Amino acid sequence: MLQCLVVIFNMVTYPNKIQKKSTKAISYSNRGMVLEDMLNETNEYYLSEDIALIYKKPTPIGTVKVGFEGGHKVINRAYFKTQSTLDYNGIYKGRYIEFEAKETKNKTSFPLSNIHKHQLEHLKKVIEHGGIGFIIISMNEEVFVLPGEILINYIERELKKSLSYNFIKENAYKVKIAYRPRCDYLTVIDKVYFKEENI
Amino acid sequence: MLQCLVVIFNMVTYPNKIQKKSTKAISYSNRGMVLEDMLNETNEYYLSEDIALIYKKPTPIGTVKVGFEGGHKVINRAYFKTQSTLDYNGIYKGRYIEFEAKETKNKTSFPLSNIHKHQLEHLKKVIEHGGIGFIIISMNEEVFVLPGEILINYIERELKKSLSYNFIKENAYKVKIAYRPRCDYLTVIDKVYFKEENI
Repeated sequence: MLQCLVVIFNMVTYPNKIQKKSTKAISYSNRGMVLEDMLNETNEYYLSEDIALIYKKPTPIGTVKVGFEGGHKVINRAYFKTQSTLDYNGIYKGRYIEFEAKETKNKTSFPLSNIHKHQLEHLKKVIEHGGIGFIIISMNEEVFVLPGEILINYIERELKKSLSYNFIKENAYKVKIAYRPRCDYLTVIDKVYFKEENI
Repeated sequence: MLQCLVVIFNMVTYPNKIQKKSTKAISYSNRGMVLEDMLNETNEYYLSEDIALIYKKPTPIGTVKVGFEGGHKVINRAYFKTQSTLDYNGIYKGRYIEFEAKETKNKTSFPLSNIHKHQLEHLKKVIEHGGIGFIIISMNEEVFVLPGEILINYIERELKKSLSYNFIKENAYKVKIAYRPRCDYLTVIDKVYFKEENI
């Protein structure tokens, strides 16, 4: 909503500038939240094609001041809370699926501080309860699925604070970026968790 | 947070009144959000005992005005959005589970306007994708699990705007209210979806 307002405001005052900005926005490297946008589009595709039901969880908030305006509840003061679970969850081929998506501009390593300790514990629990848990990493304009089992094993064994790009290339599964769906991570999930050979 | 502040304020000015209020709060019928509180407690129990991972999804919000204070993002204006999925989801015995919880003060019928059309469509999709989908109804100081299949079938066949209390008693499964867990709905899920006989 805020973004919308900003765009409208800019369009009125700087139509050419905004035009230029829109073109830039298509480039993969020049945008923040690229991964999130791609995943949202992909999940909408999965939903519309009846392939899977996967949603991004809303960020939890703590409300401090809530009022009423025209019969509607309005939040006048609140703050964002940290998610204790992973950002996305849903169902695919009857299985519970949950994952976190992170992008880094770092070209050589993925800092593990990106994943909170309680999120790692939750990931472990998801796997123990029979779910499919993983992280999606966007790095060097590539997108990878790293199965939770590999991540947890690495962290417990290596006690390192980051994953090297080489480690990711060797242990994670690269996701093909395409037109529709933009980021077909379920093809990787098929390969890893459903042992389908035809991909 | 807001509730906390109100309680603290009241305790300072009217200690006896608050004392009385706290006693009242234990009674099942005198509180709003009783069902939600019970389910949150129950889900925490399931989590701590490693029985299931089930969370209430945060209510999605639309932010209008966001600022920074002391390096932290603060929401200065936002509104609540409608959830298009159901309120709770998670994993139990390897299965995907999703449900909505509603309470009514109506003693004879449960108005179906409590469940939005897009939520019903989502419930249908959850079942089609192999998940366990249901609603929990609190009514007449009793709590029931109504399997999504029965609800959808009833709505499509009967075209009625409410479920009568008699229909609920006959078709839904009563959940035992106890000390810990407070509202053990997974025992019902075992019976209905896992066909366990020892309950």
